[in-house]
Amino acid sequence: MRYLYAKRAQDNKRSFTREILDLTSKPSVISFAGGLPDSSLFPKAQIAQEIKNLLQKSDNSLFQYSGANGVLELREQIAKTYCDTKEDEILLTSGSQQGLDIVCKTFIDSGDIVVVESPSYLVALNLFRMYGADIAEVKLYEDGVDTQELERIFREKRPKFFYTIPSFQNPTGWSWSSSVRQKVAKLAKRYGVLIIEDSPYNALRYEGEERSGFDELLSEQTISLGTFSKTLAPDFRIGWLRAKKELTDIFQSMKENSDLQSSKFFQLVVASLIKSGKLALHVELLKKEYKLKRDTMAEALKSSFGDKIEFQIPQGGMFFWVKFYDGADTMKLFDFIIKEGVAFVPAEVFFSKQNPSSYARVNFTNATPREIKEGVKRLKKGYNNYCFANLKIK
Amino acid sequence: MRYLYAKRAQDNKRSFTREILDLTSKPSVISFAGGLPDSSLFPKAQIAQEIKNLLQKSDNSLFQYSGANGVLELREQIAKTYCDTKEDEILLTSGSQQGLDIVCKTFIDSGDIVVVESPSYLVALNLFRMYGADIAEVKLYEDGVDTQELERIFREKRPKFFYTIPSFQNPTGWSWSSSVRQKVAKLAKRYGVLIIEDSPYNALRYEGEERSGFDELLSEQTISLGTFSKTLAPDFRIGWLRAKKELTDIFQSMKENSDLQSSKFFQLVVASLIKSGKLALHVELLKKEYKLKRDTMAEALKSSFGDKIEFQIPQGGMFFWVKFYDGADTMKLFDFIIKEGVAFVPAEVFFSKQNPSSYARVNFTNATPREIKEGVKRLKKGYNNYCFANLKIK
Repeated sequence: MRYLYAKRAQDNKRSFTREILDLTSKPSVISFAGGLPDSSLFPKAQIAQEIKNLLQKSDNSLFQYSGANGVLELREQIAKTYCDTKEDEILLTSGSQQGLDIVCKTFIDSGDIVVVESPSYLVALNLFRMYGADIAEVKLYEDGVDTQELERIFREKRPKFFYTIPSFQNPTGWSWSSSVRQKVAKLAKRYGVLIIEDSPYNALRYEGEERSGFDELLSEQTISLGTFSKTLAPDFRIGWLRAKKELTDIFQSMKENSDLQSSKFFQLVVASLIKSGKLALHVELLKKEYKLKRDTMAEALKSSFGDKIEFQIPQGGMFFWVKFYDGADTMKLFDFIIKEGVAFVPAEVFFSKQNPSSYARVNFTNATPREIKEGVKRLKKGYNNYCFANLKIK
Repeated sequence: MRYLYAKRAQDNKRSFTREILDLTSKPSVISFAGGLPDSSLFPKAQIAQEIKNLLQKSDNSLFQYSGANGVLELREQIAKTYCDTKEDEILLTSGSQQGLDIVCKTFIDSGDIVVVESPSYLVALNLFRMYGADIAEVKLYEDGVDTQELERIFREKRPKFFYTIPSFQNPTGWSWSSSVRQKVAKLAKRYGVLIIEDSPYNALRYEGEERSGFDELLSEQTISLGTFSKTLAPDFRIGWLRAKKELTDIFQSMKENSDLQSSKFFQLVVASLIKSGKLALHVELLKKEYKLKRDTMAEALKSSFGDKIEFQIPQGGMFFWVKFYDGADTMKLFDFIIKEGVAFVPAEVFFSKQNPSSYARVNFTNATPREIKEGVKRLKKGYNNYCFANLKIK
């Protein structure tokens, strides 16, 4: 039988993320590719203890159906601890990816314009395309987007929303300055454009001062996405949407249609970890460990590559955005480095129009410091082979 | 700010399910409304034991990101135990509701025709409407749909798919005969219509012989939805899609865009409960208890209402489909019975075009036998008050 797919499923191809995850699943490969937290740091003993407590104090109703918006205990903790708002402005989702899917369901008709930073988060780009959005890109610099270009897009294209990751961005690791944030908030207000602020890495700041998010600068027009995947563990599958109640009411119906509700089991575990202060303590530990890894990576890159590459040291998050000199095409370079047993993500997948690029996203949170040093050596060897092969061609 | 919603979010109203859940959440109300399993029967001790085992034998990677298709252990068990197929034809979802959302994402363009039984599952109707489908209804009788009407719809409307719950249907509790199943399989083959077979209650058969599903009769053209919400517990949020590999590959991308992946924690718990045979034993217990409740409900209804109502005793599942005589409008009747502290779901919400109806869906799995008896008494009192009020109006 020939299946008659919907438009949104027709240009669906096997995702590059999955290709890379397959390639890097061999234990011999040191992966700087995925945006994975370090599983060795997951607070397994504390999680096991909370699970034990929860099972002891709960009756059977723990496993029954419950509300689509998520358990009150966790919505309250998130509202208070991360969002400075009330629990009715919080909807719990299955990771922040589901939050983004719900936002798309609620706002995107086929042909609508969505603005993204260039480059931006790969699976968000896939999702926007799937909903038939036309993607407008605004160039991202180390201190934020080009506000003149953004104003032109806002004025001429009247986009449905602007999707942004202003802190420790994926893939660049860059953070917007306060002044760019304020300018963009003013522009969004003037042109009536919604801001979708994705903040998966906010809690992972290793130095420098915190900057106001759009949830503070332009609360009414901002939908914030949060997650515990980077601060606690991905398999909990708990994220949240923060927005005005008018919106969370609609999001709740969308959530109900999507999967009725998420599991409240881990929602209660996380609520308890926040309330007891254990999660905050754990994040302090993470920051210490990840900062060390970041510094190890920066040093290894510098000493191996010297002036063959360029990068900024990110103040937080999980990624370096590395530019390789001598006209390197990182998609081609990838074939050389994977042969040496190391992986990154070539930059071109993070752009809506995919062109060869000399940048790559290099993750520093997943590998150990020892693996980081070894991985960078392999990276350099692959790069040398690539340059040599290029020389031969010329 | 006035938010500019997508078409699919515009006629979104607070769902009747949620209204009812609110009304029936008071402990004084005996609810025959929701499609809830009996939480007192959840095998909490066994679940707790499996969780303990899992935490003991797993390392930290248990909480790391994993594949969008779900853990191999559970896909294998489902393929073998419930689907007679291989694990690559199984995709794990967050409840079967997410399976249905993924099917819609993959197949429905706005304006496409979707065929449903009349009546059908409420949240499926909501979902199809949300995706902009035009819903064609085919009348359901106690032994299955009207095949002549179905053929006319298949021929004239060329629908994208036919969504059906052939066993212990929601809301009627009715099961299709083998001959109607065979006729419909032939029609679907002739007209090239996909069948979406929703089977949440299949395992809950209290008497009679099992009948072949469309996954057996017309495997290539059938997408099956399954769930552990009724046989184990809803909060696990584990359902599955079974379809040809060409389809599960696309579904996997859709799943990835929707929420990256589901939690593997409970997937591993369930895999272990199936493998050890504990789940099968538990389902035997459920069937014994639910059969008793069903019989208690049937007897109570008959002795309270006599010939004022009509219903068939379902061979499995969770629902009676009760017709109230004397021209009752069950939406109006609802106001009278909720005052007496009992609830059902008025039939009209289960139809795509909502008209007054004298039917109601009455659940028998959630209340205890004692509550069932008391609830039916209250139901009769509310019905009497309703008839008396109607008499006064006339």
